[in-house]
Amino acid sequence: MTNPFFKNHGPFKVSEILKSLNININSSLNDKKILDIKDLVSSNNNDITFFHSKKYKDVAKKTKASVCITTDALKNVLPDNCLALVVDNVLVSTSKVTSLFYPDSTNDNFDETVISINNSNFKDNVNFGKNVLIGKNVSIGKNCKIGHNTILEKNVVIGENCSIGSNNIIRNTLVKNNVKILDNCIIGKHGFGFFPIKNNNLRYPHIGIVLIEDNCEIGCGATIDRGSMSNTIIGKNTYLDNQIHIAHNVKIGENTIIAGQVGIAGSSIIGNNVKIGGQAGISGHLKIGDNVEIGGGSGVIRNIPNNTKVMGYPAKNIREFLRDNKWFTKQL
Amino acid sequence: MTNPFFKNHGPFKVSEILKSLNININSSLNDKKILDIKDLVSSNNNDITFFHSKKYKDVAKKTKASVCITTDALKNVLPDNCLALVVDNVLVSTSKVTSLFYPDSTNDNFDETVISINNSNFKDNVNFGKNVLIGKNVSIGKNCKIGHNTILEKNVVIGENCSIGSNNIIRNTLVKNNVKILDNCIIGKHGFGFFPIKNNNLRYPHIGIVLIEDNCEIGCGATIDRGSMSNTIIGKNTYLDNQIHIAHNVKIGENTIIAGQVGIAGSSIIGNNVKIGGQAGISGHLKIGDNVEIGGGSGVIRNIPNNTKVMGYPAKNIREFLRDNKWFTKQL
Amino acid sequence: MTNPFFKNHGPFKVSEILKSLNININSSLNDKKILDIKDLVSSNNNDITFFHSKKYKDVAKKTKASVCITTDALKNVLPDNCLALVVDNVLVSTSKVTSLFYPDSTNDNFDETVISINNSNFKDNVNFGKNVLIGKNVSIGKNCKIGHNTILEKNVVIGENCSIGSNNIIRNTLVKNNVKILDNCIIGKHGFGFFPIKNNNLRYPHIGIVLIEDNCEIGCGATIDRGSMSNTIIGKNTYLDNQIHIAHNVKIGENTIIAGQVGIAGSSIIGNNVKIGGQAGISGHLKIGDNVEIGGGSGVIRNIPNNTKVMGYPAKNIREFLRDNKWFTKQL
Repeated sequence: MTNPFFKNHGPFKVSEILKSLNININSSLNDKKILDIKDLVSSNNNDITFFHSKKYKDVAKKTKASVCITTDALKNVLPDNCLALVVDNVLVSTSKVTSLFYPDSTNDNFDETVISINNSNFKDNVNFGKNVLIGKNVSIGKNCKIGHNTILEKNVVIGENCSIGSNNIIRNTLVKNNVKILDNCIIGKHGFGFFPIKNNNLRYPHIGIVLIEDNCEIGCGATIDRGSMSNTIIGKNTYLDNQIHIAHNVKIGENTIIAGQVGIAGSSIIGNNVKIGGQAGISGHLKIGDNVEIGGGSGVIRNIPNNTKVMGYPAKNIREFLRDNKWFTKQL
Repeated sequence: MTNPFFKNHGPFKVSEILKSLNININSSLNDKKILDIKDLVSSNNNDITFFHSKKYKDVAKKTKASVCITTDALKNVLPDNCLALVVDNVLVSTSKVTSLFYPDSTNDNFDETVISINNSNFKDNVNFGKNVLIGKNVSIGKNCKIGHNTILEKNVVIGENCSIGSNNIIRNTLVKNNVKILDNCIIGKHGFGFFPIKNNNLRYPHIGIVLIEDNCEIGCGATIDRGSMSNTIIGKNTYLDNQIHIAHNVKIGENTIIAGQVGIAGSSIIGNNVKIGGQAGISGHLKIGDNVEIGGGSGVIRNIPNNTKVMGYPAKNIREFLRDNKWFTKQL
Repeated sequence: MTNPFFKNHGPFKVSEILKSLNININSSLNDKKILDIKDLVSSNNNDITFFHSKKYKDVAKKTKASVCITTDALKNVLPDNCLALVVDNVLVSTSKVTSLFYPDSTNDNFDETVISINNSNFKDNVNFGKNVLIGKNVSIGKNCKIGHNTILEKNVVIGENCSIGSNNIIRNTLVKNNVKILDNCIIGKHGFGFFPIKNNNLRYPHIGIVLIEDNCEIGCGATIDRGSMSNTIIGKNTYLDNQIHIAHNVKIGENTIIAGQVGIAGSSIIGNNVKIGGQAGISGHLKIGDNVEIGGGSGVIRNIPNNTKVMGYPAKNIREFLRDNKWFTKQL
C-alpha cells in the first residue's frame, strides 16, 4: 500500500543515501536510484531495507532489496545482489534514511498550510464554528460538525455524521463514520519515539497514521499519537473518557470502554469488549485479550489472556488481589 | 425546581412516547399529554416515571404519575390509574424518553449559537481577551475577567469578581463569586455515562449542571463533567491543582485541597477540609468523610470515615500502610 | 540578580508595610523607604527580610536588613539595627509583603497586554500561525516557529531554532535554543502554592520563572509551573512525553526521559540521565540521583541515590520489587 499521507521524496541515488549516513565507500551502485525504504520482506529491486538482528536471518537471505543497512556481523547473510551498508547502529541509520525519504514524518511543526475554513471548499457542506483551520489533503464527509478553534492540519479524512468539538488539533488521521471527538484533543502527532543520544536525541520517523473506526467517542483532552511503522487504531464503538493518553502503534479493539486518565504505552494491543478502569496504566508491547476487565488504578506489566479480570499494581488476577488484601474487610 | 438550563421540549402525547420506544399498544391514553419525566416520588398526574427495581415498591404503589416505564414482573405494583409501559430494559427506555423531553442533554456538540463577545451585552462590563465567544443564556457578574479564546457556551452563569483564564470551554455551569478558573479547562460537558450496546452504545441524558461555589480555584487542564440526574458540585474555597478530572455527579465539600492529576470517578462524595495528594484516584459511588487525608498516588476503593489518613493502593489506614512497608526504612 | 520578569513596585515606606500587615506600632523608622524583600543572607540595609525558624538563628544574627518579619520568640536574635515586626504567622505575613513588592507574582489573570503578532515586531522574523498573541517583554530568536492560537504572555524569552506548536500559553519563561514545545501546554503559571485559610485561602507569590534548556522537547498537554522563590528548570536535551505535570520549583537534569502522564510534585530535584516510566509520580521535596530508572506507575516517596532502578508504590529497589512479586511468574 502506498502511504496515504506521507509523500515519498525519493528516488535517491545510492550516493545520496551514503552521504546522509556519512559513509564513504566506492560502489558501482553509486548512481543507482533507490525508490523507497521497506522491510526485508516487502522490499523489491531498487528499494533499500534494513537487517539488525539474526532473528530475521531467514527473510534476510531472500530479500529482493538492492541495498541493506546492516552490521559487519550480519552482512554475509545477505544475497549477492544486495549491497550491504555496514553501520554501527542499524536502527539509527534506518531512521536517518527513512527521514530522507519521508522528511515530513519526523517534523511535527505546526502546519503552515492551513487556511480558514471560510476560504475552503467545506464552507457550504460542513457545520462549523469560529476560527476553524483546514490544512492540505483534508476531506470531510456529509453531515459533520467541526467546533470552534479546531485545526484539521494536513492529512485528515473524516467520514459522515461526525461531531468534532472545539479546540482540537488533528493531523495524519482517518476518522470513519458517526465518530464523536469532544474538546481539546491532540490526535495524530508523532509518538514519544527517539534514540537517546547525549546532548541531542534523534527522533525517528513516524510514517503511520491514527485510524478511528465507526461509532467511537473520544473524550476531552485525549492525546492519541500516530504510529511509527504501523498505525494507531481505535476499534469500532470504543469509548474513551477524558484525559486519556494513547501512545504510538497502540491498537484497541471494538466495543471497548476506557475510563478517565488511562494511559496505554506504545505498541500494546487491546482486545474487543475490554473494560479499563480510571487511571489504569498499560505498559508497552503487551497483548490484552478480549473481554478483559482491568480495575481502576491498575498497572498492567504483562500480557493478559481473554476473559480475565485483573487489578493491582502490578495487575494480578482479581481473586489473588482480593485474597492479598483481606485486611480490606477490616475497619479503616 | 425547574431545570435551570435544559429546556423541556414537552408536552408529548402518550402515543408519541410509545412511538419513541417502538411499542405498539392501543391505549385509551394515546392522546393524553404528558408534561415531564420525573422519579416515582416527584411525579404528578400528567407526568411519566420509571420503576426498575423492587427496592422502590413502596413508593411505586403511591406514584401519582399517569404513565410508568417498568417490567412485566413489576407492573402489578403500580396503582390502577397509572399506565404501565412494559419494556425489556427500564433504564434504556427511560433514557430514551428523557432524551425526548430534554434532547439537548445527550447532545454535546459544539455550541453553534455563540457570538463574539464584542457583539454581546458584555462588551462594556467585562474585562475580556481576544476571540472570546458567548452562547445563549449566559450571564456574567461585576468585575469579571474572561481570557483569550475562552468559550462560554450556552447556559453559563458567572458571579462577581471571577477570573476565568484562556482557552477554557464552559457550558451548563453555575459559577459563584471570587472564583478563579485557570487555563485549558473543559467544564460542564456530559459525563462518561452510557449503556454499552454492541456496535452502538447509547448515551444517557445529563440534565444536571456543574456548580462551583465561592472562592474556588480550578487549575489548568481540568475536566469537570456535569451531572446526569443530580449536579456536580465543587464546595466553597476548594482548590484544584492542574490536570484534574472530576466525573459526573461528584460532590466535593468546602476548604478541600486536591493536588495535580487526581481523578474522582462518578457520583463520589468528598467531605470538607479533605486533602488529596497528587495522582490519587477515587472510585465511583464512594463517600469520603470530613478532614480526611489521602496520600499521593493512593487508589481509594471504599468509603473513608471522617478524620482518617489513608494511603496505598488499595488505600488503607496510614498506620497499616507504614507497618506493611517497613522495608521502606532500609537502604535503596 | 535582579528579577528578570517581575517588576519591583517598591520602595515602600515602613509605614506602608505595617499597614499592609494591619500592624499598629509607632516606629522611628515609619518614614524609612524599604527597597526590596529578600532572605536573611541576601538582604542589605534598606531591605526587609523574614525569620520564622530557629534553624536560621546564625544567619539571622548577622542580617543586614533594616526590617525583619518574625515572631515574639525569635525577635531577640536579631541585631539591634534591625526592626522586628512581630506577627502570628511569619510566612503568611512574608507572603503579603512580597505581594506588595511584586503584585504581578500572585495574580495570574489572563494577560491583557497581548497584541496580535501581526502588529508586533516579530511579524517579519518569525514563522507564525493564525491568531498568535504576544505580550509585553517577549523576545524571540532567529528561525523560530510559533503555532496557531498560541499566546506568549508577558515575560517570555525564546532562543533560536525553536518550534512552538499550537494552542500553547506561555508566560514568565526562558526557553533556550533548539527547543520543541508541542501543543496545548501551559507553561509558567504560578504553582499550587497557598496558605490554607478557612473560607478564603491565601495565595503566596511566585517570583520564579520556568527555564527550559537547549534541545528539550515538551510533549502535548504539559503543565509546567514557575517557581515560587527559586526557578523551575528543565535541563538540556531532556524529553517530556504527553500530559506531564511539573510543579513549581522542580529542577530536572540533562538527558532525562520522562514518559506520558508523569507528575512531579513541588521542589523535587531530578538528576541527569534519569528515565521515568509512564504515570509515575514523584512526591515533593525529594532528590532523585543521576542515572536513576523509575518504572512506570511507580510512586516515589523518598530520595533515590544515583544509579538505582526502582519500581512500585511506594517505589523500592527493582530487585525487591521483583522478589515481592514472585506470584507474577504464575499464570493469570
